[in-house]
Amino acid sequence: MTLANLTQMEILALDGEVNVSDGHARQSLTDGQQRVVDRFPELFSMAARMSFSELERAAQRSFLDVLGQRRAPVDDGRVMSAYSSSVAMAVLARCLSESLSTVALVHPTFDNIPDILRSQSLDVVPVDEQDLVRGELGAAADAQPECVFITTPNNPTGVVIDAGALERIAGWTRDNGALLALDTSFRGFDRRAQYDAYELLDGVGAEYVIIEDTGKLWPMSELKLGFLAHSARCRLALEEAMSDILLSVSPFVLAVVHELAADAAAGGFDQLHALIARNRAVLTEAIDGARAGTVVDGGRVSVARVALQEGTSAQAAWAELRRNGVDALPCGPFHWANTDDGDRFLRIALARDEPLLQRAAEIIATTLATAPAAALQAGDVDSVAAGRRAS
Amino acid sequence: MTLANLTQMEILALDGEVNVSDGHARQSLTDGQQRVVDRFPELFSMAARMSFSELERAAQRSFLDVLGQRRAPVDDGRVMSAYSSSVAMAVLARCLSESLSTVALVHPTFDNIPDILRSQSLDVVPVDEQDLVRGELGAAADAQPECVFITTPNNPTGVVIDAGALERIAGWTRDNGALLALDTSFRGFDRRAQYDAYELLDGVGAEYVIIEDTGKLWPMSELKLGFLAHSARCRLALEEAMSDILLSVSPFVLAVVHELAADAAAGGFDQLHALIARNRAVLTEAIDGARAGTVVDGGRVSVARVALQEGTSAQAAWAELRRNGVDALPCGPFHWANTDDGDRFLRIALARDEPLLQRAAEIIATTLATAPAAALQAGDVDSVAAGRRAS
Repeated sequence: MTLANLTQMEILALDGEVNVSDGHARQSLTDGQQRVVDRFPELFSMAARMSFSELERAAQRSFLDVLGQRRAPVDDGRVMSAYSSSVAMAVLARCLSESLSTVALVHPTFDNIPDILRSQSLDVVPVDEQDLVRGELGAAADAQPECVFITTPNNPTGVVIDAGALERIAGWTRDNGALLALDTSFRGFDRRAQYDAYELLDGVGAEYVIIEDTGKLWPMSELKLGFLAHSARCRLALEEAMSDILLSVSPFVLAVVHELAADAAAGGFDQLHALIARNRAVLTEAIDGARAGTVVDGGRVSVARVALQEGTSAQAAWAELRRNGVDALPCGPFHWANTDDGDRFLRIALARDEPLLQRAAEIIATTLATAPAAALQAGDVDSVAAGRRAS
Repeated sequence: MTLANLTQMEILALDGEVNVSDGHARQSLTDGQQRVVDRFPELFSMAARMSFSELERAAQRSFLDVLGQRRAPVDDGRVMSAYSSSVAMAVLARCLSESLSTVALVHPTFDNIPDILRSQSLDVVPVDEQDLVRGELGAAADAQPECVFITTPNNPTGVVIDAGALERIAGWTRDNGALLALDTSFRGFDRRAQYDAYELLDGVGAEYVIIEDTGKLWPMSELKLGFLAHSARCRLALEEAMSDILLSVSPFVLAVVHELAADAAAGGFDQLHALIARNRAVLTEAIDGARAGTVVDGGRVSVARVALQEGTSAQAAWAELRRNGVDALPCGPFHWANTDDGDRFLRIALARDEPLLQRAAEIIATTLATAPAAALQAGDVDSVAAGRRAS
């Protein structure tokens, strides 16, 4: 079997014994979340009685408010709802391809973003994440990109583009007639990313599109929404392209998101942040303690990166970990323009219950510390993975 | 405001007073369906404990079995789940564009299908539905299509391609190295469409893709799934393209679909068919009785077509009906290769409670019978619609 991308590795892991592969929320429900689930029949009935547009705006408003995005243009009808952030991304990519040809994309980032952009025949050039942190495009500016696409907080690095840097980048796009696109799916994990991006970008006068996402935050069995918001002046035919894919999202899911946003505001996000911080500490203690690698510091999102020892291939380590019952992700494919650059990092998902994370961390530490050196060097990894699967 | 397609008209209707516009199920829950909703918290908890792949296969199996598709390749892993049939369609269109250039598409059909195909730079040529009924491609064969795409039962006509005709068409695609694609989203409404298409196509030795859909059948607040199934031999990289859009559908929604399929098998489909037949009769009595038009005979799907009087434009009638509080759909855009052909038909959604359908039918009959002739002729319809909306 061939694994073409990171998501196919994540699919392999869905029924895995210890799955710290995908970045979806898989921890147990909090009491507050359980109370929302207990009310599902009531929320279903309530959603059926409400005006759809009122329900949609209420859900968007409460979700974006709790993330600090109070100037998001909900009441102006410039926030569209989709089944997921990736559906919003696919709609955006189609619209980009109808209007322009070159996109500068943050490097590294999750590989489905360059894959979706390229599937629409767009030229995608990398912008180094560290250039963006300084508010610059670096060498990517030479390609005269007509769109700059940034994931912030980024996946897998957790790097946040702060307000000052975003303002400089937005100024560049404005001055160069380019569109600024942000994917802020991990915003909910990091308060440093919760300054009001809409207020900032409207102040700069930038033409922009922002993808927001409820899907990474709550362990809601993939009941989620993606939002696609845009500036008042926007060259893209987003509404038309979205209407080719969907008439509306689920009123029931809108009602659920509305309730979860209220719970998040009433302490739910604090609980979430505490869980992720605890799990990051658990991982760090196990990995760094065993001198099996180093957990990279600084991120607050629901994934962590382990920097491997010199000479270790993450792709090989991934296969070796699968043999030991743990699914993680090798970071090569995140470095979509130069996969070798990422092969010294593993990505570990943290949105799990602490005991599972503890177990994963121990197996990872032991595997990395004790596996024969040859097993951790690059090889024919796909067939190795398939071998375990068939056994 | 500009209305670019049928879905944008349907979006306008979402908060409308009497909405018989979209083909989604909006009737009240049956007792059996209400019992499923009452069990949502339990189903959520159960889905969280089950193996994902077992749950997915169980849901696919029960849904496809109740539709007579017992040979659908669920256990071979050749049925992929998506958030909706349109997401499956978008994934399919991307893959088609990577492998071929010309698609013969049934005419008429819902306009998002040609729109999605064209958005992927595919050449789309029309095949007359009546040619397909005879198992032929007619003039479309001259374009040497590399894919033949058929919606059956069709939307808005309800026309079903029977087993004999499908066998002949599949033979043509096999003999000409073409791919056969079916969208069977309305299959659940018409037992004539529930012969086993997989058995038939495998018997012919065709290369095929089939889109199945739970979304039109049950008033489940858009909790739904689309499935994308394919033959063992298939040139398209469907798994890879799907994995760019999603990791997995919702386990909870899989559990809900599993329950609804069981309810359908235990009499739920009989109830649904009876509701649609009653509503079709209500519409026919009102429209034909007032000599306001003629409900076109023969369909069993959850939409009906009203053939208007000579000289009446459906687009104009649509606007006039909106002024009177009823949202329907004009059929011009369904005739995507020649919209004038369809402008003598209105499409009325039937998956509604009978009292709402009764009210819609009466207003439609009165409007068509009494509106000034000038109001029912073609004009600047978009601005008329926008006028009502702003008022």
